[in-house]
Amino acid sequence: MDAYLDNGNTTPVDKRVVEAMEPYFTEKYGHPLFIYSKGKEAHTAVEESKDYIAETVGAKGYSVMFTSGATEANDLALRGVAKAKHTEGNHIITSNIENPSVLRICEELESEGFDVDYLEVDEDGFVDLDQLQKLVSEKTILVSIGHVSGEIGTIQPISKIGKIIRDENPAVLFHSNAAASYGRVPIDVREAGVDLLSISAHKIHGPKGVGALISKEGIDIEPVNYGYLSLSELRPGTENVPGTVGFQKAAELAFENFENKTEHIIGLRDRMMNGIENSIPDVVLHGPKGKNRSPTNVNYSFKNIEGESILMHLDARGISVATGSACATRKLEPSHVLTAIGVDPVVAHGAIRFTLSRMNTEEEIDYTLEVLPEVVEKLREMSPMKNR
Amino acid sequence: MDAYLDNGNTTPVDKRVVEAMEPYFTEKYGHPLFIYSKGKEAHTAVEESKDYIAETVGAKGYSVMFTSGATEANDLALRGVAKAKHTEGNHIITSNIENPSVLRICEELESEGFDVDYLEVDEDGFVDLDQLQKLVSEKTILVSIGHVSGEIGTIQPISKIGKIIRDENPAVLFHSNAAASYGRVPIDVREAGVDLLSISAHKIHGPKGVGALISKEGIDIEPVNYGYLSLSELRPGTENVPGTVGFQKAAELAFENFENKTEHIIGLRDRMMNGIENSIPDVVLHGPKGKNRSPTNVNYSFKNIEGESILMHLDARGISVATGSACATRKLEPSHVLTAIGVDPVVAHGAIRFTLSRMNTEEEIDYTLEVLPEVVEKLREMSPMKNR
Repeated sequence: MDAYLDNGNTTPVDKRVVEAMEPYFTEKYGHPLFIYSKGKEAHTAVEESKDYIAETVGAKGYSVMFTSGATEANDLALRGVAKAKHTEGNHIITSNIENPSVLRICEELESEGFDVDYLEVDEDGFVDLDQLQKLVSEKTILVSIGHVSGEIGTIQPISKIGKIIRDENPAVLFHSNAAASYGRVPIDVREAGVDLLSISAHKIHGPKGVGALISKEGIDIEPVNYGYLSLSELRPGTENVPGTVGFQKAAELAFENFENKTEHIIGLRDRMMNGIENSIPDVVLHGPKGKNRSPTNVNYSFKNIEGESILMHLDARGISVATGSACATRKLEPSHVLTAIGVDPVVAHGAIRFTLSRMNTEEEIDYTLEVLPEVVEKLREMSPMKNR
Repeated sequence: MDAYLDNGNTTPVDKRVVEAMEPYFTEKYGHPLFIYSKGKEAHTAVEESKDYIAETVGAKGYSVMFTSGATEANDLALRGVAKAKHTEGNHIITSNIENPSVLRICEELESEGFDVDYLEVDEDGFVDLDQLQKLVSEKTILVSIGHVSGEIGTIQPISKIGKIIRDENPAVLFHSNAAASYGRVPIDVREAGVDLLSISAHKIHGPKGVGALISKEGIDIEPVNYGYLSLSELRPGTENVPGTVGFQKAAELAFENFENKTEHIIGLRDRMMNGIENSIPDVVLHGPKGKNRSPTNVNYSFKNIEGESILMHLDARGISVATGSACATRKLEPSHVLTAIGVDPVVAHGAIRFTLSRMNTEEEIDYTLEVLPEVVEKLREMSPMKNR
């Protein structure tokens, strides 16, 4: 059998999402900017998607800007705010376990003269709130902290972070990249004090090529891309109408019976974690245990072997997983997140991330728990490190 | 019956394109950056799409960068080259009939200190080649001239333009926005001397949300968006794998039996033009006649009435068309293209653009030719301008 356990990178599109998109490919294909019936039909679909998605994060009245994905949403949030607010200050705060997308954008901002501080995290990946409090100053314009670590599953105390920022300097904008959590770990942007939220469709069984930046009304953001504006005030180009409809449908399916789904996923996660800890010696869990760990994330290092070898052997048995640094599988650096939480580089190289979704089954977990110990044992037998 | 005659704005997705995409939604959903089987499968699909699309414009060996659409491709070409070459010069040449997407990007470049010249065009929309020759200087870094005018159908003498640029200053890069022509009017980028070509899927019965910038190998382009790079060296974010597969399929269908398809579309265009000229008095054709007019474009002003009224009345009869300035239907300015070719603003307001595709039929044209004269006559009866 097959087991797809890399849902943190991308997910299969739910058949009901494909069905929802189909009419917008072949029948309701109008350009949403145009005032004839076919245009209005498309316009209505895009606006409904915006409204629906806003409500799923408590962002009624916020603006939803569809983008090509969370990466573009992050770029628009970070560089767009930096450009708009550069006369107010040049200081930005993020953390050293952000998604590479956010870190690359921050590198670019540094090269443009912005001063970026990277918060440290503890051994479970929680950002240092005291450090945050000390760093927020009159010069700070933006704080960007991901809601959940896609790599080790840490759910940040986002409301506490929002409160610290507001207490220290209410003019600072708070951005959160929620690509690793949207539709899986609830967030209420008003309650959390989040001004800007990045989300993605293809992480929740929606289509690739669609994301959104949700932003509080009245926030000043400069565009990062130029061209003719269709429906958006900031993001040029023809809206991906079927994509936005698919995003809405994926969100509907994610939030429908949310508690049952979460219970199902947590059941799988804990089955997986118990299974690994009970059947494989010399494993190291990365990230927290319990309620502050994302239901979808399991991440262990298997000592004395390489994550990449495990990945290849599991793949040969139909199981898809990611190595330590999920976004960097073509680059053999140890994961920046594992480094940040203090994992020894040798151990970090043996990390495997399993990411679950509502579509996974107990059978897939049990199959993986059958194959994984064999693979680990075999690789350890062959390992030059085995006698260390 | 219905007649969709606004294919220049967007097109219905061909059912075969939807079928080609479907497996990449629900089965072959891997992330193309990842090295397990599902990732490789997606990687292969994206690379095959690139190769196929490059060959359709004689660009074998060129780099194909998938984007969210032609707008983003234009942005990457223009601002990407401007940023990369600003130390060599600050002069850019375009024309005053470019797509609003290109013109907005040029406005932004002007605000950043670049010196942009807008070539004039003659009454049929052909750019002034003498003016081009005089303007290309040592300071020029980029020329951007659209292959075909989406609004009035003018096919620019792109090879002559390429030659003039190379003769005057071989270091200048030549970009052409081919969103209005790709898959409908052939282009060979090597023969034409085009270094950068922007194309779009949703104009050729492919999906919205996918475009590409095709660029000659070795050209220095700076990114305009930042984030983690997946397969592209320049454009961050997860590739829209089903989108690229759909783009390839749409291109295959566009180029299959290309001559027969072109003959069919030209037949419809000429039937439409003859029908209008023979049955409706006081009409003014915009753009050239004959082989230098795009097979897909018909654009007439109907004197003494408003294009928008015609559009609404045709829409009520199931016929979708665009008014003069196709991209600006929510803004009541006269079309910048019609202004550039010297059309009186009053006449420009009565312009209607009909854009055809391989999926249109004689029946649709005949139905339109039955309805349109009635609509025009009725509106003229009611028009306050009728006695002018």
